[in-house]
Amino acid sequence: MKYPAHLLKLLDLLRKFPGVGYKSAERYVFDLLTWTQKEQFEIAEAIRSIHEKIQICPECGCLYGENACLLCLPNRQASQKMCIIAFAKDAFAIEGTGEYKGLYHVLGGLLSPLEGFSTEQLDLERIQNRIKKNHIKEVIIALDSTLEGDATSLFLKQELETSEVQISRLAFGLPMGSALDYVDGGTLARAFSGRASF
Amino acid sequence: MKYPAHLLKLLDLLRKFPGVGYKSAERYVFDLLTWTQKEQFEIAEAIRSIHEKIQICPECGCLYGENACLLCLPNRQASQKMCIIAFAKDAFAIEGTGEYKGLYHVLGGLLSPLEGFSTEQLDLERIQNRIKKNHIKEVIIALDSTLEGDATSLFLKQELETSEVQISRLAFGLPMGSALDYVDGGTLARAFSGRASF
Repeated sequence: MKYPAHLLKLLDLLRKFPGVGYKSAERYVFDLLTWTQKEQFEIAEAIRSIHEKIQICPECGCLYGENACLLCLPNRQASQKMCIIAFAKDAFAIEGTGEYKGLYHVLGGLLSPLEGFSTEQLDLERIQNRIKKNHIKEVIIALDSTLEGDATSLFLKQELETSEVQISRLAFGLPMGSALDYVDGGTLARAFSGRASF
Repeated sequence: MKYPAHLLKLLDLLRKFPGVGYKSAERYVFDLLTWTQKEQFEIAEAIRSIHEKIQICPECGCLYGENACLLCLPNRQASQKMCIIAFAKDAFAIEGTGEYKGLYHVLGGLLSPLEGFSTEQLDLERIQNRIKKNHIKEVIIALDSTLEGDATSLFLKQELETSEVQISRLAFGLPMGSALDYVDGGTLARAFSGRASF
């Protein structure tokens, strides 16, 4: 006996989430069946209305709810800094540190021939226009330290170097709380070459 | 900066699923934002209508979709066997083996003082009525081999022994494909005491 058609459909939809396989989707569906109808309606409505409730800022590409984009406010513009990130969610991670109070620019992806994300999709012209318009003095490239992230960082550095802005990127080194002998060679090498006076 | 209120609400709702913590819920929400609106509506509608589309059989407690409960059909009744399971999903697992073609009875839980599931909730009277009505000759207790499952099995055995039915339970022993030295002591002990002629 197979599951009823509706369960199978919901199973398939749940498996679209990252890291959710058949067994996890099964657990979620059977758990969902034990929720009250009110709770089921609540999550269904929250998902249905996500497009209305969550806006993407046409300026920086970050997300915002009811109010206008908090990351494009004049006090942030006054910092004359712009941080380039791959995805909107990265802004939340950086904001969580409290280390940065400037503008953001979301690329929407990283250079990847396999995924079909090319230099055109980075839309350099828009970045350069924003740098001019906001009188940016420092561009901070904050991308993943992966092959795609490094390629994108290098490309952006080369292309933006012509303008009169200082370009920096996030520091590489030991993660906090790490033991030297457990850190991989690549990280240790970068931490050595990037050593700072103490 | 915190997430927009709507995102936070959806995060909280997603964390109700078993095994989903804050980080997983975050991944799901940001993945959901990349879905097309059609896909978002589809999963929202599938969740919203689950109560309408999935029925619980008033007779056996199993789930069914559009058609009547396939597990209560006359050919199953003719087998004069009834398998007692804790949850509706267990029926799908047993059906998947193809080893059993009788009726089911869903308890809805296992005896657990901590979770407040007591002997009254097992509703012995209903089980006994179903045994009589369906002229059941064999009751197969198919519960988890945990503390709660064992306690429930023992209780059911004691209470149902008075009637004229044969009571059996699933075999304990080595799982298929297991290596002796990797099997835990309890399982090995049960496999020994339950050894069968070869």
